[in-house]
Amino acid sequence: DDNLKVFTLNSNRDLAHEITDIIGLEMGKCSVSRFSDGEIQINIEESIRGCDIFVIQSTSSPANEHIMELLIMIDALKRASAKTINVVMPYYGYARQDRKARSREPITAKLVANLLETAGASRVITLDLHATQIQGFFDIPSDQLMGVPILADYFQSKNFDDIVIVSPDHGGVVRARKLADRLKAPIAIVDKRRPKPNVAEVMNIVGNIDGKTAILIDDIIDTAGTITLAANAMIENGAKEVYACCTHPVLSGPAIERIENSKIKELVVTNTIPLSEDKKLDKITQLSVGPLLAKAIIHVHEERSVSRLFT
Amino acid sequence: DDNLKVFTLNSNRDLAHEITDIIGLEMGKCSVSRFSDGEIQINIEESIRGCDIFVIQSTSSPANEHIMELLIMIDALKRASAKTINVVMPYYGYARQDRKARSREPITAKLVANLLETAGASRVITLDLHATQIQGFFDIPSDQLMGVPILADYFQSKNFDDIVIVSPDHGGVVRARKLADRLKAPIAIVDKRRPKPNVAEVMNIVGNIDGKTAILIDDIIDTAGTITLAANAMIENGAKEVYACCTHPVLSGPAIERIENSKIKELVVTNTIPLSEDKKLDKITQLSVGPLLAKAIIHVHEERSVSRLFT
Ligand SMILES: Nc1ncnc2c1ncn2[C@@H]1O[C@H](COP(=O)(O)O)[C@@H](O)[C@H]1O
Ligand SMILES: Nc1ncnc2c1ncn2[C@@H]1O[C@H](COP(=O)(O)O)[C@@H](O)[C@H]1O
Repeated sequence: DDNLKVFTLNSNRDLAHEITDIIGLEMGKCSVSRFSDGEIQINIEESIRGCDIFVIQSTSSPANEHIMELLIMIDALKRASAKTINVVMPYYGYARQDRKARSREPITAKLVANLLETAGASRVITLDLHATQIQGFFDIPSDQLMGVPILADYFQSKNFDDIVIVSPDHGGVVRARKLADRLKAPIAIVDKRRPKPNVAEVMNIVGNIDGKTAILIDDIIDTAGTITLAANAMIENGAKEVYACCTHPVLSGPAIERIENSKIKELVVTNTIPLSEDKKLDKITQLSVGPLLAKAIIHVHEERSVSRLFT
Repeated sequence: DDNLKVFTLNSNRDLAHEITDIIGLEMGKCSVSRFSDGEIQINIEESIRGCDIFVIQSTSSPANEHIMELLIMIDALKRASAKTINVVMPYYGYARQDRKARSREPITAKLVANLLETAGASRVITLDLHATQIQGFFDIPSDQLMGVPILADYFQSKNFDDIVIVSPDHGGVVRARKLADRLKAPIAIVDKRRPKPNVAEVMNIVGNIDGKTAILIDDIIDTAGTITLAANAMIENGAKEVYACCTHPVLSGPAIERIENSKIKELVVTNTIPLSEDKKLDKITQLSVGPLLAKAIIHVHEERSVSRLFT
């Protein structure tokens, strides 16, 4: 199909090539480099007039560089007469700045949505937005895919005896419930409480984890403080072993050291954010969202609903 | 005047403080930092409701970081009910990407204008845009100030005997003419020509430079290739000595080494882009645009015309 073209920017080149291989397309020809002063230089090296374009780019770290690459690429595609410009953003950066937690803060997740629309995006395809409300920040169509089925398939293949799915905080219970449904397992919740100001937090576990294989799940693991403390609390409270999983392995600052030193037996993540060499621990397993995104691209291009891919 | 507030982001903190000192204002309280994963965290720490806000930020290198800081700040100011949001951008990054030089290129200078408007800017104040046409990229009011008077005053104070103002290429003749008018000097032009493809360029000088003090002028000096080659050609063609000047000292890559090793006696620049320690050569003089910008801010705030400041 000559009318469908996929381009990649710099955040997820391997994933993008996996996607074009699955679809059976050549990668769109385009150079994305830097001028001497660090400004982004983009040149699209083939005609795209009248085409449905899919651009693969996570706005993972360095988020600002990746956002600007994406905006400039969209501008170039628009001026080169693309028919539609579909942004495939496996990881949506700034998603945690989705509300004013204090007064006079920005709502950067909304700003980024506005910037993408201003640049000329026609549609945005994302995976596990930190808050589903972010879909409403867009006035263009947006599709939200889920990492849970990919994580569930992996754990299924392990044939664990007696498992419990654990949310590391109250905000993650819906996500834990989804994984538990797929694995036909019960859930538990880590219930953090600070009895008095300036007194250390107490971690209670709501639910039965005794003697079980516990699987902690979150959407993003960033500095890994929450997840490693929760894992250690699991073991202290009688869990047999602890696995952890998330869709988006941000893994910044002390994350790798904390995971290495924690009671987590294996951490399972996806490749919405690639792992640099120094983050490839033996106990981290990375699963690919490539097949899911390839399917989503085909569905969008053929104007079929993507919602079927949720389940 | 309680209604006027100036904030600075990270590109030009010293210049911003000079501006508030001149106006006699406290600097607006605001923290601009980074989360662990590198995302920008901004918090405005005083009420700005109903105020005229001026934000000082050049989108100099790292351009993408500085652009995102600015957009996120504008978003925060807008949500905190600023009356007007005036962006004071001494250096406008991406100004050289102001047209499609090849097909399927972006026009990033226009994109950035659109992004600023989308974020919520009410007005933009810049200095020596690479192309004056960029003013037309904005639908909001924009003021363009000039560095030439500041450079001219400096050279005036040197009381040179016999000077000639030189444009390093054809595109810079109008700028050279402006400096020449102020210094009551003649002009000359470096006329580069490539006699045949794949043959080295020949530099002719149009105009009389013999025995004179030559002052080369450009808007931006980036890698300093053009200006240092032109300076050396001046000396070879009989100039007594060569000065160079520009408004925006980008000075990337080999620039500092080239300037150090060139025939340029002194390079005079402004502080639209601050010089890092490794760029502070003895032969580089930096003049401040602080007084000019302070005046512009007062004029805009008092709803007086800024065009008077051009002359
Ligand atoms: N990149 C980031 N890293 C860490 N915290 C963030 C980041 N972006 C936003 N936040 C903060 O995270 C909080 C929201 O996280 P959550 O409660 O998990 O939705 C807010 O207080 C934000 O200020
Ligand atoms: N940051 C940059 N550094 C060097 N060259 C650039 C930069 N941005 C744009 N250009 C190129 O500079 C040329 C325009 O410069 P000019 O002819 O001086 O207006 C175009 O070919 C651009 O592709």
